[in-house]
Amino acid sequence: MRPQEIIRKKRDGEALTHKEINAFVTGVGSGKWADYQISALLMACFLRGLSTDETRFLTEEMLHSGEVLDFSDIDAPKADKHSTGGVGDKTSLIIAPLAAVCGIAVPMISGRGLGHTGGTLDKLESITGYNVNLSLAEFKKVIKKCGFAMIGQTAEIAPADKKIYALRDTTATVEYIPLIVASIMSKKLAEGLDALVLDVKTGNGAFIKGREDSKKLAQALCKTGNDFNVRTEAVVSDMNEPLGKFAGNTLEVFECVKILRDEADAEMFPTRELSIELAARILVLTGITESLETARALCERKLGDGSALEKFRENILLQGGDGRVCDKPATLLDSNLQAIQIKSTGEGFVAEINTNAIGSAIWAIAGRVKVDDKIDLAIGYECRKKTGDAVKVDETLGVLFCRNENQASLIGKKLRAAYKIVEKKPSQEYALIKEVIN
Amino acid sequence: MRPQEIIRKKRDGEALTHKEINAFVTGVGSGKWADYQISALLMACFLRGLSTDETRFLTEEMLHSGEVLDFSDIDAPKADKHSTGGVGDKTSLIIAPLAAVCGIAVPMISGRGLGHTGGTLDKLESITGYNVNLSLAEFKKVIKKCGFAMIGQTAEIAPADKKIYALRDTTATVEYIPLIVASIMSKKLAEGLDALVLDVKTGNGAFIKGREDSKKLAQALCKTGNDFNVRTEAVVSDMNEPLGKFAGNTLEVFECVKILRDEADAEMFPTRELSIELAARILVLTGITESLETARALCERKLGDGSALEKFRENILLQGGDGRVCDKPATLLDSNLQAIQIKSTGEGFVAEINTNAIGSAIWAIAGRVKVDDKIDLAIGYECRKKTGDAVKVDETLGVLFCRNENQASLIGKKLRAAYKIVEKKPSQEYALIKEVIN
Repeated sequence: MRPQEIIRKKRDGEALTHKEINAFVTGVGSGKWADYQISALLMACFLRGLSTDETRFLTEEMLHSGEVLDFSDIDAPKADKHSTGGVGDKTSLIIAPLAAVCGIAVPMISGRGLGHTGGTLDKLESITGYNVNLSLAEFKKVIKKCGFAMIGQTAEIAPADKKIYALRDTTATVEYIPLIVASIMSKKLAEGLDALVLDVKTGNGAFIKGREDSKKLAQALCKTGNDFNVRTEAVVSDMNEPLGKFAGNTLEVFECVKILRDEADAEMFPTRELSIELAARILVLTGITESLETARALCERKLGDGSALEKFRENILLQGGDGRVCDKPATLLDSNLQAIQIKSTGEGFVAEINTNAIGSAIWAIAGRVKVDDKIDLAIGYECRKKTGDAVKVDETLGVLFCRNENQASLIGKKLRAAYKIVEKKPSQEYALIKEVIN
Repeated sequence: MRPQEIIRKKRDGEALTHKEINAFVTGVGSGKWADYQISALLMACFLRGLSTDETRFLTEEMLHSGEVLDFSDIDAPKADKHSTGGVGDKTSLIIAPLAAVCGIAVPMISGRGLGHTGGTLDKLESITGYNVNLSLAEFKKVIKKCGFAMIGQTAEIAPADKKIYALRDTTATVEYIPLIVASIMSKKLAEGLDALVLDVKTGNGAFIKGREDSKKLAQALCKTGNDFNVRTEAVVSDMNEPLGKFAGNTLEVFECVKILRDEADAEMFPTRELSIELAARILVLTGITESLETARALCERKLGDGSALEKFRENILLQGGDGRVCDKPATLLDSNLQAIQIKSTGEGFVAEINTNAIGSAIWAIAGRVKVDDKIDLAIGYECRKKTGDAVKVDETLGVLFCRNENQASLIGKKLRAAYKIVEKKPSQEYALIKEVIN
């Protein structure tokens, strides 16, 4: 079947058959479909819609466009966590060692930061020597040895998604739930998992901002996961402010190590809470514990007794990194940075934080515009004030860690403008976890 | 403005500004817009729609992506005819000399056959030596000398349309009126015309098949032409059967020369009638005559006294062709062809002719699949029976002129199946001209 006939069908609002979706994804891989035909179909899908069946077919074909990992020689249950992306969203670095130390194998394939959000791979590279470019064989070996490994998407995993995602990013076809589902799930299902927990961000710092849409995305992700016999749960979590204390690669690793050392301060608490919540759900889904309460207590214990930290150290060493960050997280911090106080010009309460603006401002000076640009990992932001907090005139809202005055003047105003200060304390209570879908 | 922002706007159903459409068309030319971004926007336009204003902006920008011809040094009014394409649609070869001999300058830029339809350039190349690849300077010189010239689209004329059209053809975004209007009109307006007559085909052999859609297309074309100060009229004409006697390049030239020699037989009459109608409208639009009646009579006279034929000969010689076809049109015909009778298996009346099927069958054996394939110009079809005609069992419906039995067996059945024979004479009267829009 010629590409234009399949495009025409979707253009006219008809459902595509499994065979037609197979022809499309196969054609993406073989080059039979030109880029301009792929993007025309994606736009037609965006505007005409994809049914649940079509979404499942697309996920399946994209999944099978590459290798599906086989961990059947590892006895432990296989599980992973995936987040839809946010600012200061660093839980992977806590969840992976925490789940591993509880007896789960975590084959975590992550991405780099894009748009206003950070990415796990960039964070890991803050650790001197840490290698995220393992081959699949090395990846497996590390998992076998220490229970988890963290790498970037390889050419073998869902190559059709890689191609399609790059096109969506430049043709305004990103924000459509069935396409997001197929993209995320084709990669996650390739990890050969027994269980998967999804952290669907909602709010002004998320890709899908509206609460209802986030819920729909969470439901669609869960449905697809379970359709493929992976026990899947989704947590809809807040992204109306950066998560925890820091946003910025090195600073986020610092925060994670502090939490793994059980030295979290109050500002790091949301990161700790969300990490435990997601890890605990993995423990229940994989049958390690029966109840969430037991699972949460187990996680607390593994953070308290330092065993999750030791698991992280084990992994760092296996992936070529400098394990000493586990002992002295402060060595991560670059003493040459300038700390610029972002101060409030008004008095009252923080009613809103434009999280997207904060993320975009940081990455603008850290230097990534395109996906393969090198970035300054040390650049980042410390969030002092969160939604609902009282502020006085000249009180510090946050601290920008940057290289020079130039950078500060470039984004200082944007950071300040990201805070909406009102006279009356907002009545709405902050809730980190909005909803659980399973 | 980045391409994806403009795509997003149209995707979300917003109207694009003139500036945004300028950015798009400029980007098509400069390569700033990648093919996959162009096709994504085209699909979004197709599904979200383009307003009259947007269509005008698009036409204007595509027009100015290339050269606009300047014939101000030619005193005669400048006019052209354009057809939306059909089977056996050969009127250009009659209208151009007819209008020219009446005192009009006709700078006709034409295309090749595509899909099931024929193209003027292919037909002209049936005349030994005829050169359709003149430079714009030569084109102008020939027009100055004999009143008309016929060439193919050059790289200078509306290059953005060339690029966009090629993408539309392979991404199922052809059949959308505003895009058709911008494509046709950007090329025609580049001819620097005072007047333009459009022949909008309607029926099963047209690109736009439905009567209402054809009318809408005609209206949109007229509106755009007049918006650009070109006096524009459109005739909606029948394409529920091949026009006139022959479909096929050389055979169609033969038919035209017969008409120019005033030797048209009854089967050629529709071609003659439509040519006169369209030429007459050009004469009125340019002010050569005041009324259509006078114009028609003038055309009849120019066909009757042989002056239109002499004008054609003059042009053929100036474009390097063998003028003797004007004396002996039969020399055009290839005596090595086999004439295969396509016979009726039923008795009754022709209720319907699948014109698209006939065109597709002929071009399939003539050999063009892609636009630059060489074709066997002599291959063609003579239509004996038309809609409403009575037929007996074994009576000839038409004659296929081809090279061998193989070709005949390949498409013979398809040609026969193109005719729907019913018992009762269809009540609907055949009308060549359905409607005039001005």
